[in-house]
Amino acid sequence: MTNTQVTLLQIDNYGPWTVTPEPRREADLQTLQSRLYADVSQFVGARDGYVFFTRFDNMVGVTNGLDIDDHRLLQESINNRYPVTVSLGIATGQTPIQALSDATALIQDAGSAQDADRRNVLDGRIVDDAHRTESDVQIAHFDVVDATGEYTDELNAFDSFIEIEQGYAELMRYMRSAHDSLSFFVGGDNIIAVCPTLDRAAYEDAIDHVESAVGVELRVGVGRGNTAHVAGMDAKHALEHCRATGSILDLAWE
Amino acid sequence: MTNTQVTLLQIDNYGPWTVTPEPRREADLQTLQSRLYADVSQFVGARDGYVFFTRFDNMVGVTNGLDIDDHRLLQESINNRYPVTVSLGIATGQTPIQALSDATALIQDAGSAQDADRRNVLDGRIVDDAHRTESDVQIAHFDVVDATGEYTDELNAFDSFIEIEQGYAELMRYMRSAHDSLSFFVGGDNIIAVCPTLDRAAYEDAIDHVESAVGVELRVGVGRGNTAHVAGMDAKHALEHCRATGSILDLAWE
Amino acid sequence: MTNTQVTLLQIDNYGPWTVTPEPRREADLQTLQSRLYADVSQFVGARDGYVFFTRFDNMVGVTNGLDIDDHRLLQESINNRYPVTVSLGIATGQTPIQALSDATALIQDAGSAQDADRRNVLDGRIVDDAHRTESDVQIAHFDVVDATGEYTDELNAFDSFIEIEQGYAELMRYMRSAHDSLSFFVGGDNIIAVCPTLDRAAYEDAIDHVESAVGVELRVGVGRGNTAHVAGMDAKHALEHCRATGSILDLAWE
Amino acid sequence: MTNTQVTLLQIDNYGPWTVTPEPRREADLQTLQSRLYADVSQFVGARDGYVFFTRFDNMVGVTNGLDIDDHRLLQESINNRYPVTVSLGIATGQTPIQALSDATALIQDAGSAQDADRRNVLDGRIVDDAHRTESDVQIAHFDVVDATGEYTDELNAFDSFIEIEQGYAELMRYMRSAHDSLSFFVGGDNIIAVCPTLDRAAYEDAIDHVESAVGVELRVGVGRGNTAHVAGMDAKHALEHCRATGSILDLAWE
Repeated sequence: MTNTQVTLLQIDNYGPWTVTPEPRREADLQTLQSRLYADVSQFVGARDGYVFFTRFDNMVGVTNGLDIDDHRLLQESINNRYPVTVSLGIATGQTPIQALSDATALIQDAGSAQDADRRNVLDGRIVDDAHRTESDVQIAHFDVVDATGEYTDELNAFDSFIEIEQGYAELMRYMRSAHDSLSFFVGGDNIIAVCPTLDRAAYEDAIDHVESAVGVELRVGVGRGNTAHVAGMDAKHALEHCRATGSILDLAWE
Repeated sequence: MTNTQVTLLQIDNYGPWTVTPEPRREADLQTLQSRLYADVSQFVGARDGYVFFTRFDNMVGVTNGLDIDDHRLLQESINNRYPVTVSLGIATGQTPIQALSDATALIQDAGSAQDADRRNVLDGRIVDDAHRTESDVQIAHFDVVDATGEYTDELNAFDSFIEIEQGYAELMRYMRSAHDSLSFFVGGDNIIAVCPTLDRAAYEDAIDHVESAVGVELRVGVGRGNTAHVAGMDAKHALEHCRATGSILDLAWE
Repeated sequence: MTNTQVTLLQIDNYGPWTVTPEPRREADLQTLQSRLYADVSQFVGARDGYVFFTRFDNMVGVTNGLDIDDHRLLQESINNRYPVTVSLGIATGQTPIQALSDATALIQDAGSAQDADRRNVLDGRIVDDAHRTESDVQIAHFDVVDATGEYTDELNAFDSFIEIEQGYAELMRYMRSAHDSLSFFVGGDNIIAVCPTLDRAAYEDAIDHVESAVGVELRVGVGRGNTAHVAGMDAKHALEHCRATGSILDLAWE
Repeated sequence: MTNTQVTLLQIDNYGPWTVTPEPRREADLQTLQSRLYADVSQFVGARDGYVFFTRFDNMVGVTNGLDIDDHRLLQESINNRYPVTVSLGIATGQTPIQALSDATALIQDAGSAQDADRRNVLDGRIVDDAHRTESDVQIAHFDVVDATGEYTDELNAFDSFIEIEQGYAELMRYMRSAHDSLSFFVGGDNIIAVCPTLDRAAYEDAIDHVESAVGVELRVGVGRGNTAHVAGMDAKHALEHCRATGSILDLAWE
């Protein structure tokens, strides 16, 4: 049974900051956001977690293995190096969506995302070391079958992007509603889903759904582990196995 | 009449690199991609262009004001500091989609995105200084009406993201097919569209379409200029005007 | 008794790389070096170590608290994100200079700094958890008395820099030969020395020596701890105490 | 005759900021400083200037080719992305030291480096396009003869560093007093000097002085150009010529 630890990172009062006193240069905002994400990704990744950029002002992490002190240090380090502060909500749950809901509530309860007085919230709970198991995290790594041959080398770059994006939009919505999973586009033609304990049929269902809904053909490798990195690396190897064999689904543990 | 200069940046042979000899740590790939994007954004932004992260391995820039030497320097600097190389296609056109199609073709004609021998392509043409005008670039800056109150402070972070994302997916597709525009999610609840010479009715049409299709209420400020930055800053101010007055559409030049 | 764990990081074959096939742009080399240093500093700092930029192609870390796997992960992450690789030698000793000598020997024994075939060396030993103590690391944080009033606000920026630099050059040499310590300029008017178990008289001696040799007046706060961060933060507070009281020497534990 | 345009960048009120309300983590300060330097180096370098990190809170740039608007944009971009602000003084002169003195005075006249109310100073003058020439900037690129064989591969990393550092300390002081030049350590065993119109005898004199004073054997390539990059790249090629021929001095224009 999965027991996913999810962290929501929200930049405090970011919207108002971007236009105060005047709208700031877009290139600077893009640079700030993507570098903040890169830093959070390095910090969490060096402790075997995953972080997804999501909306950039709201990032979602799978943080099994990080304790509250780790989160406090991340918050302090951002404080020391950026012109913005961040709030962190941490929760655990048998489904990723439940954990994220609880993590979100911790931040919402402390004030609005556009409340100038709500800064540096740090609240939540982690999976204690004593309760951590090898099946806490289940990661599914999807990509688009022959994306380069079908899209990148054939269509203009925006129409390729539309295809990938529509596949992603459909998958994210379906995996959320049908399978309590959180799916994130991670660049190229790759989507990573953080899942509860799903079986083969669930992934086949999702792949079928996306193909019939928007015509994008996906395949997926799935892994499990006590951290996102361990689960995710197994998922990557499983996906490599798909590429080598032509199958569309590989579960690392089968 | 717009005359948009578009640059397609494509990381050479990136997919294979990410899994050679073994799949690389996801956190490192995310860090590499987002920092590369940040650097490109700073370089182009310091010359008053915009760059969108798109799929990260394929980025799209609006580069009016940058010449071929600027592009060559960007390519050389990436070569000097990253473990990957990039190819650049540059084209101009009366619609952004036409320019991007031509820019894409320049890179595709030189080889596949997964061709190990195709590296450092630099090809294309710019808008000569003599032909540049104040209406070359038209930028529309959209956001979601009351995204914080409706979504961020109310729903869990993933369901908020789904709402924003579905609005974006619908807008990107519609603006592409109906209005020859390129729309990019830029974080938070913001979408920036690079447009041909569209009028008030076109934006009203797009906003209506997204609301009726997926129930997400957008508003937009639109600006024009000889660069993306000038047009985009006018669009930002126009959007601020919407926020102040409660309107859903403001054209900076009217 | 101190038991300092020192890591030497050396960029592999860097000199030849900087001029192959042609000399690379200096601004890119500077950017590469300083960002690599920043990344190493974040990685090690998030585990409560210190890293000094030294010559940039050779960096020195105080890494009590990091194990071999941490070092391997750092090396892998650099491999994944930079166009250069690094070798790491790790050693422990009752004096920092002895530890660094041993760490250096591990890398030198594997090949020359300009040997194209010597890459990604990782060798050495750490202080086992069972043997770690609160006095393993002793850090002295020096600054120049009234550097702003005497130099920065009075002299041109280069002559201010010469004064600071001559003070540093004298201190680094004297602390090395007389007190087996490693001293590093860390910006502004700050110098951090990694020391064996030195007493009050040793620091007074060093301060006197620098003032009589080059006329630069230093003061110092000193701390101890099981990591560089703990010792260094105590040293910073001790130095703040000097600033508040006008004294030139404060030992955090007295 | 050289006409060097020099920019002094000073972080506003940085010392107090680093200890308010409590001393900040050293690793974060090091990261902040080195990344700020990297960003400034990229910005200025992309316009063919050079920037030296100097004391990190005071950086020195050779900015021929950048106008006041470029400097304003750099300042604004730092404002948008960092928790600190910077002041910029710009001056020109027939010797680099005179230009830097004038640039320093512009900032000093506006207030102390530790004045909380002095922020974002931007003052000075540039070399007008009409007066720019191919001999405006003269750059000398020094390195240590056989540094790898003599030091890096033989001594421990700190004793190697002491040798390089003592060579640098002596050269910086001598080139300043005897030849009105600004010399900066740039990593490895490399020193770059920004010079007035010096001839062969001056460089021979400086090399002889350093060898007799501290026993460090230097060689140097020298270039001229209308920007630091052009002059510096010529200097690099001249130094390569030294390496190839075994000479210790090469002037690119002879």
